[in-house]
Amino acid sequence: MMPQPTNDRLLRALRRQPVDVTPVWLMRQAGRYLPEYRKVREQVGSFMDLCRTPELACEVTLQPLRRFPLDAAILFSDILTIPDAMGLGVSFVEGEGPRLAHPVRSIRDIDALGVPDPDRDLGYVMGAVRLIRHELGGRVPLIGFSGSPWTLATYLLEGGSSRDFRLTKTFLYEHRSHCHRMLQVLANAVSAYLVAQVHAGAQALMIFDTWGGILTPRDYRAFSLAYMQQIVQNVKAYDASVPIILFTKGGAAWLEAMTDTGCDALSLDWTTDIGVARTRVGERVALQGNLDPLVLYASPAVIRAEVSELLASFGPGSGHVFNLGHGLQPDMPIDHVAALVEAVHDLSPIYHQ
Amino acid sequence: MMPQPTNDRLLRALRRQPVDVTPVWLMRQAGRYLPEYRKVREQVGSFMDLCRTPELACEVTLQPLRRFPLDAAILFSDILTIPDAMGLGVSFVEGEGPRLAHPVRSIRDIDALGVPDPDRDLGYVMGAVRLIRHELGGRVPLIGFSGSPWTLATYLLEGGSSRDFRLTKTFLYEHRSHCHRMLQVLANAVSAYLVAQVHAGAQALMIFDTWGGILTPRDYRAFSLAYMQQIVQNVKAYDASVPIILFTKGGAAWLEAMTDTGCDALSLDWTTDIGVARTRVGERVALQGNLDPLVLYASPAVIRAEVSELLASFGPGSGHVFNLGHGLQPDMPIDHVAALVEAVHDLSPIYHQ
Repeated sequence: MMPQPTNDRLLRALRRQPVDVTPVWLMRQAGRYLPEYRKVREQVGSFMDLCRTPELACEVTLQPLRRFPLDAAILFSDILTIPDAMGLGVSFVEGEGPRLAHPVRSIRDIDALGVPDPDRDLGYVMGAVRLIRHELGGRVPLIGFSGSPWTLATYLLEGGSSRDFRLTKTFLYEHRSHCHRMLQVLANAVSAYLVAQVHAGAQALMIFDTWGGILTPRDYRAFSLAYMQQIVQNVKAYDASVPIILFTKGGAAWLEAMTDTGCDALSLDWTTDIGVARTRVGERVALQGNLDPLVLYASPAVIRAEVSELLASFGPGSGHVFNLGHGLQPDMPIDHVAALVEAVHDLSPIYHQ
Repeated sequence: MMPQPTNDRLLRALRRQPVDVTPVWLMRQAGRYLPEYRKVREQVGSFMDLCRTPELACEVTLQPLRRFPLDAAILFSDILTIPDAMGLGVSFVEGEGPRLAHPVRSIRDIDALGVPDPDRDLGYVMGAVRLIRHELGGRVPLIGFSGSPWTLATYLLEGGSSRDFRLTKTFLYEHRSHCHRMLQVLANAVSAYLVAQVHAGAQALMIFDTWGGILTPRDYRAFSLAYMQQIVQNVKAYDASVPIILFTKGGAAWLEAMTDTGCDALSLDWTTDIGVARTRVGERVALQGNLDPLVLYASPAVIRAEVSELLASFGPGSGHVFNLGHGLQPDMPIDHVAALVEAVHDLSPIYHQ
């Protein structure tokens, strides 16, 4: 039996149960802005090697928790572990982002895609999850995650990052049924991957739909949201109790539809007023977010004022997990991150009396 | 007296008056995807030289109208003419976008900003407007334009394009009153610039708020929308009859607030369903848009099907100006653009019976 968390604010807030303080964690809370992360990173040849070594992935997962009283840990990994396990050859070029050695360029490439076996092909991730749970010793819950099928599909089609998603969109508009076929494989892969993470010890899950916001509303529903809904159903069939957070960057207009998937929480980017979002969907899901990460370049006093305003916008009651609207950047000052976490814990108790 | 347009579909649709066919024009309809444009571009040393030469700006404005039966011309220019006229030294580096020789780096820089005199400092733009009106001979209306104060401010602060708007956001969060001071200067400059364009012959105006969508809802209202509202009021005080189109890229959530400015039309990016937008605000303003420009990489058959669906989504009645959700790209095929324009004219009459 694994120990249960003693700080269960995150899980309670995701279930909209009463909490003493608004829980806070930060997207990319483990990463390059921490010198201790950079030190570990230097020990391995590549970024993927870091992800593939459970001891090191565990170490960098825990680093931010030693500095800040965060209310959750999130598995240190990358959304491209699945394409890598599919044999597409993921690597990271410094300053240029990810590269796939074998991008999807034809219908034949799609037909060749297989669903990785999480324990065999992604065993290093499950090893990291088990190790982190053990090392956490129940102090805070551990969040597992995956990219959404649509977001993974953009990397498969572009062979990396993109500014305009020309290859993705051309394929989407020209070959809709083949696009669906690819997304179904990816949805099966993500479902199996997340179920395995829960089996290994992840206590909450987040699906990062980083590129859902580039779609039209029609195509978002058909090509991104529908597959995330399948995943939610598959994971819930395995374990109905594990909270699932959906995050579509640029998805402010689609919160109601996202809620219909049966997920437990929506993560919001900073272009939504969280109070308005709560009136729209807050009776059905918890909300995570949504400070503009660029606020972290401003002074601690400004950070505290912005945290205060965001907490007030959500208002009294549970169902809020404080976070950024997008990830921390490598050049963000550590003491500003500390000021943010401190402000959330200092200023939120009045909303939970 | 300047001749009145014989094809007045654009102006009628912007006023939600009956039309025979849905009018269509395309953002960046003049530009690098046309070989005749590239030929003119080669004749001048720099992109700004092209903007500064009325005869050449007129020529490239008219080029797409010779190829396609477009329902409007739009002044060929750049949104950075105002910063250039402010003495900030705008240039374009091939493949890298705009550069400002003297970006705003301090409060003193803001205090030094002055409002350019449109006729003295931007006379070349007014010369181009007059020449284009003359050359058009009343065939279609001419749209003038400007960047929004907020969008111009991002260039002033970043000194060019940006991925994360770090300098802009840091300044915004740290120095809110100075940010307002800069935006007021820019709003005054844009107002004078657009009034002068109307005086020179522009028959409709569009304000491009390309970077309003990077803001939180609170800051969008205070730092972008409020200044666009001032401009609408200033232009309407000069000539209440000239239709004004607002375009905030990424502004799907804020259509109602944009409508409250008193503008005549909203231009939509592709992340909004135009039928849904019409139910939200279509009784108060016309709507322009909003085909995903990336559809133009797909085949003419797909383009036609997407045009058909978009026309059906808007539905019967006037108040729709067909356009893209963002500008044409240099590598888009000319015959695909032709297919789009043809499809709009072929398929829209049934909605105007």
